[in-house]
Amino acid sequence: MNIGIIGLGLIGGSISLKLRKSNFGDKFIGTDYNEKNALIAVKLGFVDEIRPLKDLIVQSSVIILSIPVDGIEKLLPNILNTIRKDTVILDTGSTKYTICKSVYSHPKRSRFVATHPIAGIENSGPLSANSDLFYKKNCILCDSELSDTDAIYITEKIYSILEMRMIYITSKEHDLYISYGSHLPHIISFSLASTVKKFKNKKKVLNHMMGSGWGSTTRLAKSKPETWVPIFISNINNLIKAIDVYIDQLRIFKKYLKNKEFHHIDQYIKKANDIIKDQKYV
Amino acid sequence: MNIGIIGLGLIGGSISLKLRKSNFGDKFIGTDYNEKNALIAVKLGFVDEIRPLKDLIVQSSVIILSIPVDGIEKLLPNILNTIRKDTVILDTGSTKYTICKSVYSHPKRSRFVATHPIAGIENSGPLSANSDLFYKKNCILCDSELSDTDAIYITEKIYSILEMRMIYITSKEHDLYISYGSHLPHIISFSLASTVKKFKNKKKVLNHMMGSGWGSTTRLAKSKPETWVPIFISNINNLIKAIDVYIDQLRIFKKYLKNKEFHHIDQYIKKANDIIKDQKYV
Repeated sequence: MNIGIIGLGLIGGSISLKLRKSNFGDKFIGTDYNEKNALIAVKLGFVDEIRPLKDLIVQSSVIILSIPVDGIEKLLPNILNTIRKDTVILDTGSTKYTICKSVYSHPKRSRFVATHPIAGIENSGPLSANSDLFYKKNCILCDSELSDTDAIYITEKIYSILEMRMIYITSKEHDLYISYGSHLPHIISFSLASTVKKFKNKKKVLNHMMGSGWGSTTRLAKSKPETWVPIFISNINNLIKAIDVYIDQLRIFKKYLKNKEFHHIDQYIKKANDIIKDQKYV
Repeated sequence: MNIGIIGLGLIGGSISLKLRKSNFGDKFIGTDYNEKNALIAVKLGFVDEIRPLKDLIVQSSVIILSIPVDGIEKLLPNILNTIRKDTVILDTGSTKYTICKSVYSHPKRSRFVATHPIAGIENSGPLSANSDLFYKKNCILCDSELSDTDAIYITEKIYSILEMRMIYITSKEHDLYISYGSHLPHIISFSLASTVKKFKNKKKVLNHMMGSGWGSTTRLAKSKPETWVPIFISNINNLIKAIDVYIDQLRIFKKYLKNKEFHHIDQYIKKANDIIKDQKYV
């Protein structure tokens, strides 16, 4: 069974490394629009060979589409047009609704499985890949009733090799919850970093004042626009609402400060402590 | 030389452990308004004995005041009233301006050194203390011209044992910069956690969607109100302005989304990447 990996960055590379380590699949074929990354991918052993996209599509029994979400939306219908009828194709995009919508009426829709392995980090590219990236993290599989049983089976097999836990929800639910769980935190982090622009003449002293709290709250601000602008576009309506909900929360906090209603701030913090305390994210 | 530690939590405990490990000082005397914490502190070897505050004050050559900032503001003038004339007292509070203001005209002001070792974490209490907490982090020393040379010398000696780097600025500058570097990130984190209150019936599935990005951006939301409400009160004016600056940044981002000005979002992210890239926080 040949495995085709489209996009040989952090996610595609990490999947390949783990699958090959586990002796899943025979030949691994890769493609990447960035030629340098393709070369690195071969050197790092992600794939046996680099092939043009159209060759990869016909030669692979399983295709893993791990490129930015705008690329997935564009490529997926074309790939479905040309795959063999028994090929399984799965994507790893961070949004799911517009991707699923783009192939909803496609005659070969059932060969596609929409997934989101929640494992991204602030670094990207093949050099950040590692075979343990997914260990004990969650993978969301969306609209499973629209995929063939054998396609779901292969997909679950792959993610079980990656040691991920599967969660099954609709693509619509996915995009709503992930707008709070991942996309909003990125906007928060970019925006926090942006607040200190005005101190650019005081950069040195300011850097000395940044503790681990600043570090963790701005960690995501290292993330690249190539990945994130398409995600924001793809989840735009949920995100605009999430930003509004968040600004409302900040305004409530600010109002308590302005009115010196400090007992309310005490309660606000206790509720936040309570929301966080049961959460186990990896 | 007896060392008196007022407040035997994360900061006071970690300082004691490191100083004792390095054989600095003779007897360590401690006090804590929480009797259980005082007991734990003795068992963990922070101090040789627990004494009432007034005994500690007269028996110590160096007093380290590591309690919430509202406690420091209240206690510090009284402690200065009763210390011997050669005693050094330093505080470790996360705000500096109101603390310095509370003793500005005190006849013994010069025995006090205002410091902020930037090393706090989301956990608190004596059980979180460890002797390496301060390693290679920054310590801000404020308004140094108002302290006696020997008091500064002892303080610098203590922080050099903790292996901290010293930064010298005014208490006013400290509170401005720290409002962005630490206090605003805490408000951001409490507010982000609060956004998902509305999903309380979907808690289980939502928790599965929270990746490491949510984890790092809400890490500070575990912080306790006992520590943070007094800090927010003590730095209220800077914080209200910082929240405004931050909400403006979020609004700019949201406007770009609403108007589909995605090239501006690309630029916004690149600028944030750039601001973060040189920062080394520990």
